Amino acid sequence: MSNNNSATPRRQLHLNVNILHSGFVPSAWRLPESDPWAFADIQHYIRTARIAEAAKLDAIFLADNAAIVDQIHFRPITALEPTILLACVAAATTHIGLIATASTSYNEPYNIARRFSTLDHVSNGRAGWNMVTTADLPSARNFGLDTTPDHTKRYARASEFADIVKALWDSWEDDAFIGDKASGSFIDPTKVHAIAHRGEHFAVQGPLNLPRAPQGHPVLVQAGASADGRELASRHAEAVFSASQSFEESLAYARALKTRAAELGRGPDAVKVLAGLTTIVGGTEAEARRRRDELVDLIPWDYSLTRIAGTLGITPDRLKLDERLPDNLPLPGNGNGNHTFFNAVVAAGRTHGYTVRQLIRELAGGGGHRVIVGTPEQIADDIEHWFKGGAADGFNLMPDALPHGLQDFVDGVVPILQKRGLFRTEYEGRTLRDHLGLARPGGRVAQRLAA
Amino acid sequence: MSNNNSATPRRQLHLNVNILHSGFVPSAWRLPESDPWAFADIQHYIRTARIAEAAKLDAIFLADNAAIVDQIHFRPITALEPTILLACVAAATTHIGLIATASTSYNEPYNIARRFSTLDHVSNGRAGWNMVTTADLPSARNFGLDTTPDHTKRYARASEFADIVKALWDSWEDDAFIGDKASGSFIDPTKVHAIAHRGEHFAVQGPLNLPRAPQGHPVLVQAGASADGRELASRHAEAVFSASQSFEESLAYARALKTRAAELGRGPDAVKVLAGLTTIVGGTEAEARRRRDELVDLIPWDYSLTRIAGTLGITPDRLKLDERLPDNLPLPGNGNGNHTFFNAVVAAGRTHGYTVRQLIRELAGGGGHRVIVGTPEQIADDIEHWFKGGAADGFNLMPDALPHGLQDFVDGVVPILQKRGLFRTEYEGRTLRDHLGLARPGGRVAQRLAA
Repeated sequence: MSNNNSATPRRQLHLNVNILHSGFVPSAWRLPESDPWAFADIQHYIRTARIAEAAKLDAIFLADNAAIVDQIHFRPITALEPTILLACVAAATTHIGLIATASTSYNEPYNIARRFSTLDHVSNGRAGWNMVTTADLPSARNFGLDTTPDHTKRYARASEFADIVKALWDSWEDDAFIGDKASGSFIDPTKVHAIAHRGEHFAVQGPLNLPRAPQGHPVLVQAGASADGRELASRHAEAVFSASQSFEESLAYARALKTRAAELGRGPDAVKVLAGLTTIVGGTEAEARRRRDELVDLIPWDYSLTRIAGTLGITPDRLKLDERLPDNLPLPGNGNGNHTFFNAVVAAGRTHGYTVRQLIRELAGGGGHRVIVGTPEQIADDIEHWFKGGAADGFNLMPDALPHGLQDFVDGVVPILQKRGLFRTEYEGRTLRDHLGLARPGGRVAQRLAA
Repeated sequence: MSNNNSATPRRQLHLNVNILHSGFVPSAWRLPESDPWAFADIQHYIRTARIAEAAKLDAIFLADNAAIVDQIHFRPITALEPTILLACVAAATTHIGLIATASTSYNEPYNIARRFSTLDHVSNGRAGWNMVTTADLPSARNFGLDTTPDHTKRYARASEFADIVKALWDSWEDDAFIGDKASGSFIDPTKVHAIAHRGEHFAVQGPLNLPRAPQGHPVLVQAGASADGRELASRHAEAVFSASQSFEESLAYARALKTRAAELGRGPDAVKVLAGLTTIVGGTEAEARRRRDELVDLIPWDYSLTRIAGTLGITPDRLKLDERLPDNLPLPGNGNGNHTFFNAVVAAGRTHGYTVRQLIRELAGGGGHRVIVGTPEQIADDIEHWFKGGAADGFNLMPDALPHGLQDFVDGVVPILQKRGLFRTEYEGRTLRDHLGLARPGGRVAQRLAA
């Protein structure tokens, strides 16, 4: 890996921030510096995005749900619809990438293709789509179903869905627009194509009713730990959000994913692995730990028990705070949690032999993502280790509290990463693809030339 | 009607502008001052919205389609998805209302309720939803259908759809949010309610996953000329976009609509009739006519013939440019045009005995909306006549070309309307409901108190 301007481009560290309302720790909204209404306040998202942009982060990321899936008496939820939220953020920023989550189970591919292409147009090429299949029952019941669709069927639908969305994104050639006032030719109709898709789940004629997006395709993002999820990611994803608790596990995951993507004919840099990482920053390690404990102590134990039980697909009464996790927990069936977080929580519990109470404390409230509690120096060391060792191409940061936890990270950790030559000091391009080092898909012309 | 500060509020004239890409006349993009790329350029919409806001207009309006339904080799199309587009405009404006079109046939009610509530949150209460049932075949074919749904069935689905959307908007009581850091109470779950809807077309459990919108309900807008459309408007719409060619027709339409709304138990001011109006402004009438002719001469006749035939639900070969419309044209069946425009075009042709060529010229390219060609004084007179006579509560302006035709209107016509005391000189409120003089729906608490 060279840092000079040789022909081989320097491998870039990527940093996204997940703007999960008031922050990743469920009690973040209770901190003195937090605004409890932030979850529904567009200014909170704009403010946080500007902090991320000032630090030259790659993108902001918005999770989403199509129902209330958490305990609203204790904590904020994903509320504002992400594509609309990010359109506002687009108008208030210039460079930062904008990644929104949307479900393949409860949308139509034509609408998703159009909305993300629109977001790409209005942001001048900064849009990304995090495709999720949506496992929970409350969402299913908002869309006419009494049970959640079977895991395998959800992923089969998602794969066909992604094929259609990409075909719609390519339904206009890049130079279809003419706009010649003298001749009156507006668009060249020979460069706008039906897709005439007829598949198992969908029939979509096309073309899309807007020109090809600035990025060709908005960046396709996915997070899948199950076998079906990994296969979907290998086929379609350009960035994957992983939830590994250990370096070795993440390295194995990244290698397997990239190997499978290569088998499917994709290039060696076609997919970036971004590891989920909650950061709790302090001037000393002890200070950081005090902050973590303060946050955890503000979470009702009942809430944490119910939440971790939900992730494990069991009832809360099967967990005792001062005992270890039960043995032989089965992978959750359809509609119970998701495999990514199940695996992460079980691994965290088993590896360290934690009691449930310790596990909740170490996971800073019982989510499935890895938590680092420490000084900026310690966090930068960890990031460098994972990045240089190939366990991650970057990180999906989930600060303990927002915007203050992000401010702590960009003030403390980012300058160290920059000094070490690991992270950019200026944006080198304008689009999310530029930031992530992803090629712009060539579309139909490129497909024709290659044929 | 009094203009002083008596207890009876002065009846307000309402003016929206329909930002139909480069303007209502199909050749608008070919004018020297036009940017052909405007249709896909968010800055065009922001610039135009700011002109409207500077003139204190009520709202901007975005039409939409879920497919390419026009002839793209001749003119721009609705391209950017309107809710995302308007979220960007929201971030760049402060007062103007933001009305987006979305289809009840090709969306799910949960998603629509959430997106419009989100738009209302991010704009601080400026969102409106123009609900359409989508009659065309290309749209149907983008959503798994081979034919368009039957007219009556489309409207039955739309009515149930609107009921669900409103129930979801009311699923949170206004004071459900607590956010008390000391006690850790975030939301009062007893004030967040499932809707448990099980109907003919949909099963939706609810509640919505975001707090009640600033306006309670985003403003519900509709445009329906058919019997089913009028019934839907009478039940649900708070603003109706009409397409009447004559004062008498519009007066009869407005009276019938308001009478039916009253029969359904709605208040006398519960629905505003906003008449579609294309304006072509000139310093003299002759100058305005020259501009109209210049624009019409830039439209290929083949394009206009095909377009008007489409509206009439017939093939273009049945129309001869220098003959009148055929007699006994049947109302179009499902999937062919829409009743509003059919009636308007037929009425325009019959009333004046126009040839098809004259009709296309008088309609400034063959759309179904009324066109005024004249001086600011003449246009203001016409607006005052319709408004004072009760044929309209206001107008949905569709300037010939954008943004210049709107600039001509706000520079020439608006000051005259203001001088006559017909139109506001400052915004008197902050929300779209404030501008339109519509009450904020009380939600569940009001329903309980009334019961």
